[in-house]
Amino acid sequence: MTATRYEGNKKISVVEGCKKAPKANEVTVEIAYSGICGTDLHIFHGVMDERVGKPHIMGHECSGVIEAVGSDVSGLSIGDKVVVRPLDPCGACYACQHGMSHICYNLNFMGVDTDGSMQSYWTVPASTIHKIPQDMDLKNAALVEPVAVAVHDVNRSGLKAGDKAVVIGGGPIGILVALVAKSFGADVVISEINPFRLGFAKDLGIDTVNPTEKDLVTYVNTWTDGVGADVCFEVSGSKPGAMVMTEVVKTRGKVVLVGIYGQPAEVNLKQMWLREVELIGARVYEDIDYDLAIDLVAKNDYSFDKLITKVAPLEELQDILDGMDTDQQGMKVLVKC
Amino acid sequence: MTATRYEGNKKISVVEGCKKAPKANEVTVEIAYSGICGTDLHIFHGVMDERVGKPHIMGHECSGVIEAVGSDVSGLSIGDKVVVRPLDPCGACYACQHGMSHICYNLNFMGVDTDGSMQSYWTVPASTIHKIPQDMDLKNAALVEPVAVAVHDVNRSGLKAGDKAVVIGGGPIGILVALVAKSFGADVVISEINPFRLGFAKDLGIDTVNPTEKDLVTYVNTWTDGVGADVCFEVSGSKPGAMVMTEVVKTRGKVVLVGIYGQPAEVNLKQMWLREVELIGARVYEDIDYDLAIDLVAKNDYSFDKLITKVAPLEELQDILDGMDTDQQGMKVLVKC
Ligand SMILES: [Zn+2]
Ligand SMILES: [Zn+2]
Ligand SMILES: [Zn+2]
Ligand SMILES: [Zn+2]
Repeated sequence: MTATRYEGNKKISVVEGCKKAPKANEVTVEIAYSGICGTDLHIFHGVMDERVGKPHIMGHECSGVIEAVGSDVSGLSIGDKVVVRPLDPCGACYACQHGMSHICYNLNFMGVDTDGSMQSYWTVPASTIHKIPQDMDLKNAALVEPVAVAVHDVNRSGLKAGDKAVVIGGGPIGILVALVAKSFGADVVISEINPFRLGFAKDLGIDTVNPTEKDLVTYVNTWTDGVGADVCFEVSGSKPGAMVMTEVVKTRGKVVLVGIYGQPAEVNLKQMWLREVELIGARVYEDIDYDLAIDLVAKNDYSFDKLITKVAPLEELQDILDGMDTDQQGMKVLVKC
Repeated sequence: MTATRYEGNKKISVVEGCKKAPKANEVTVEIAYSGICGTDLHIFHGVMDERVGKPHIMGHECSGVIEAVGSDVSGLSIGDKVVVRPLDPCGACYACQHGMSHICYNLNFMGVDTDGSMQSYWTVPASTIHKIPQDMDLKNAALVEPVAVAVHDVNRSGLKAGDKAVVIGGGPIGILVALVAKSFGADVVISEINPFRLGFAKDLGIDTVNPTEKDLVTYVNTWTDGVGADVCFEVSGSKPGAMVMTEVVKTRGKVVLVGIYGQPAEVNLKQMWLREVELIGARVYEDIDYDLAIDLVAKNDYSFDKLITKVAPLEELQDILDGMDTDQQGMKVLVKC
């Protein structure tokens, strides 16, 4: 089997690896495809060295086929097509004991805190496995993890059919949030400054606005007859995004915080007070988000597959990551494991 | 009749005033007591000159007795003891038409946007009147407005009996929020740096912490066995308050934004994301908040009356406001109208 290892200092090695036999409550998945996400790039850049340790096998967005099943596992069989929900909670903390194990105080985010899916075989707890339709394309299935992020964000917002939603940031997650919001029946606009991403969103039939050309608050006020949007998703993780997110929603509108802010950012709290706005943190996904994500990707009514802009062999991971540093023209790159 | 007028430049005049006869849907209230709040001080300091106009009669926290009733008003009679809910919404906007008239897009906050209760007689829409028990003390009744603010804040938080709540800021509203939270069955701690306010809260049986002496996050983690508080009320309107408010609550804990921030403030958004915290704006009050506030103040099980630290004649308003600039040793001052 082949494994790729982050060795530190932007260096990826390709090694023989070792296939782990599943423990009683585990399964081994033969990985088909593994998507590269922003977190993997952060790891590659050395920003997360303290958290991940070295060497480290990256990858948490994968699809595959069950290759071996532990003795205590029921309901899963060799040959099943599956995806992995890469969360391994502690089971004992307040969050775990109150139905919020996805935000466990001691969460093991598999592929980040422990080794991940960028190898031929990945042995994981059976509790992290979701079966997918046996006729589902395994490339598309590698999108289930990021789509589940988007589903979670939309579920946290309480978005309803007919609502108007603003998505700040048109990267892969922003576009997925917009598509999922459309699947809920909402009218959506993405605010983005990158011309490639603006074009990409337009090609998917998503309305866009470039806030460097048109003031976003003015745009939304015109769009909503002065009322404000029902929901805003802040996906950019940028300072301008944090500042404007509370200014585009209606009275008691919801702002979902999706982007990750390494530093505290300024927020227009007076506007939140004035309109009784709610700002809601949203992180990863729950079981039910995965179920809906599988359904949405399997049906593919919203062209999720178009986000896959490149598929390459696992052995080329070093080149791919080097390339992503200079070329911002892609959306989702999959490696074939 | 006597009226006090803000003339600009920290100047209050006492004038004869003119009693307005009620229109068909109005009543005239003979004002008994009118409380002075931070907003009135802001007006006095000239900060709100553009909004209030000059001369301006301040006051929005009052109690009184109905003196005249308009021809179309039913259910109210001369001699009824009442309080005024000083909100006059437009009735036509999105908020008004969706059950949120208290945060009307074109709200007339009576006593700020129009003349208020610091006069002998105040003529107001009948829709703003709440009857109070006929045996209720009219001094205490002047506390209903700020208590209703606190009730609204607590209602917005979803606080339940047994919950742990942190109140940042121990001024009049912070103390009222703490008392109302206690009346809901919560364990409460106030974070405050002013020694007078710390002592005042302690005398009312409220636990306190001084964050300049003890790190608030450490204190709350110890108090909650590392889980975090269920609810935090940010009442201080301060930058340190904005920074710490998201750090003291548990996974999916609620932070209610009560304090008014003139400028955007930095917020630890990563912590909100990590724990899926909800930050909820809360402004003024709704009908039902007033009803509960009247009930709480009438019963007085939580010693709301102790907040009244001074009662003085209306004619002394200039001296009182001058004095409040230098003396921070009071809580709620009432003027007798
Ligand atoms: Zn990811
Ligand atoms: Zn846990
Ligand atoms: Zn007030
Ligand atoms: Zn209105």
